[in-house]
Amino acid sequence: MTTIDELVTGVLSGDRRSIAKAISVVENNAKEAKRLVALLYPHTGKSHIIGLTGAGGAGKSTLADKIVREYRQRGKKVGVVAVDPSSPFTGGAFLGDRIRMQELSTDHEVFIRSMATRNYPGGIAKATKDAVRVMDASGKDVVIVETAGAGQSEVEIIKVAQTIVVVHAPGLGDEIQAIKAGIMEIADIFVVNKADRENANKTVTDIQANLQLDNKEARWKTPVLKTTALTGEGVSELVQKMEEHRQYLNQEPENRSLGRAEAELTEALRERMVDSILGNLKKEARFQELLKKISDRKIDPASAAEQLLKKAFESVKT
Amino acid sequence: MTTIDELVTGVLSGDRRSIAKAISVVENNAKEAKRLVALLYPHTGKSHIIGLTGAGGAGKSTLADKIVREYRQRGKKVGVVAVDPSSPFTGGAFLGDRIRMQELSTDHEVFIRSMATRNYPGGIAKATKDAVRVMDASGKDVVIVETAGAGQSEVEIIKVAQTIVVVHAPGLGDEIQAIKAGIMEIADIFVVNKADRENANKTVTDIQANLQLDNKEARWKTPVLKTTALTGEGVSELVQKMEEHRQYLNQEPENRSLGRAEAELTEALRERMVDSILGNLKKEARFQELLKKISDRKIDPASAAEQLLKKAFESVKT
Repeated sequence: MTTIDELVTGVLSGDRRSIAKAISVVENNAKEAKRLVALLYPHTGKSHIIGLTGAGGAGKSTLADKIVREYRQRGKKVGVVAVDPSSPFTGGAFLGDRIRMQELSTDHEVFIRSMATRNYPGGIAKATKDAVRVMDASGKDVVIVETAGAGQSEVEIIKVAQTIVVVHAPGLGDEIQAIKAGIMEIADIFVVNKADRENANKTVTDIQANLQLDNKEARWKTPVLKTTALTGEGVSELVQKMEEHRQYLNQEPENRSLGRAEAELTEALRERMVDSILGNLKKEARFQELLKKISDRKIDPASAAEQLLKKAFESVKT
Repeated sequence: MTTIDELVTGVLSGDRRSIAKAISVVENNAKEAKRLVALLYPHTGKSHIIGLTGAGGAGKSTLADKIVREYRQRGKKVGVVAVDPSSPFTGGAFLGDRIRMQELSTDHEVFIRSMATRNYPGGIAKATKDAVRVMDASGKDVVIVETAGAGQSEVEIIKVAQTIVVVHAPGLGDEIQAIKAGIMEIADIFVVNKADRENANKTVTDIQANLQLDNKEARWKTPVLKTTALTGEGVSELVQKMEEHRQYLNQEPENRSLGRAEAELTEALRERMVDSILGNLKKEARFQELLKKISDRKIDPASAAEQLLKKAFESVKT
């Protein structure tokens, strides 16, 4: 058995087996994960964390592969965390991509990890964040988080990234409105892949038109780039733009870093509060009484929760 | 201005404009929503709540349309809550379905509501649950919740339902494993739509083979039905099976209803705790100090949260 301390030493030295084991720990064991992350945390904050998301069929996985190769050519160590690549609803087109990715993983400065489609203690977003921290601590210069699709949970996951790249293929049409409402607002770079298709320029223009409305005040103007992942065209320019975004972030004042810290602390508080308080509340007789009342439709759950908490926290020292 | 009390009276009488307004309230105004739901809650619990989910391209919307018509033929009043129909990543194939649905909505005993793709106070799952409660209180015999796809957030949403129907089209292949890991375990009824395709039977067999492993102990054996939504074939049998599932639920002992109440109360507590406690913690000087420490990587967020909570809840009366 490897102890957590041995695991930490291994991860910090960049040992591949230790990285793999450490990610398994954050995936499976909430208690050990806590200790592991606490020990690794002082060694994080050095990687450039890139989020890559977009529609199924946009060629995102092929693009991810090309981005990794481009970073390798630039001498950077790369980690990839692929979230939900086997989603039943994004189709079976991933096998080819996986084989390509496995080729890459014979390169010892590239570490690729797929997160499975299942429930994690603390949720998939937390597991992903911790996996990124492990890779960060292991000395990767760049960590790419790839998510499938762009539902609310994917948006939650991708927020771990510093630079968010949203990939789409030509032929948006009416969908542009829907994109605006969702993931567009968190994009730092927009990519129209499959740029060899005839309607690629139209899609670029559509996206730009929508971006302008939001972009007026921002210091970073979200660019819309074209790539053809299959041939690699435009990938070097995309990586260049990602690097520029990182430089832009580095110039940001300290309050951005404090803002990120606040988001992380708030989330950790949220988790802990539930763990530590809910268990105690459930032991109370009042809890059981209120269950019966809810079941009999005599009180609604929100009002019942209020009653319980009012009683419990009458004397909270805050 | 309609007051909340007037709105409640309107909803309880089944007035369509009141139902629409009430759902807008639960979508937009957390405080009014709380009061509205508290007042409606004693009148809920009568509808049969059906969740309909599955892959894009499985013909789920066409099937939903046919299910509504079948229930109408059986003299039932029907509500539909369609979550995320305009997702940018499920494609633009919904217009036809929407027109079909709008036809239906001239029927005064059918109420259809689409939830937009955006952030709700309290999250999309809560907004959906409250929208279902409004329809339940308004006297609908059946409320159908339709979600697109089956990511973790969709699973969260669909759990509001008593009877969960998972729709797929023929041609699963390797995806069956992925389905198993995800939504399959919460399905009460499995439907293979587009049953006129040649490989439909193979898909049915694949699903059944996987279900048997899980089903051994259960009193409800999850059936796998075939439908052709376009022609309506198999829809009557599907609705029959939904009715059987409802009867099965009604025979369940009281602890099932208490279990549901516990899930609802726990969730409400989770929301309230965050609301009421986090705000106070943020005012503390210690909170700001810990932010700086996290930002400087001197402490990890989880350990910081623990420190804060330990101090705050030393004297919690639980």
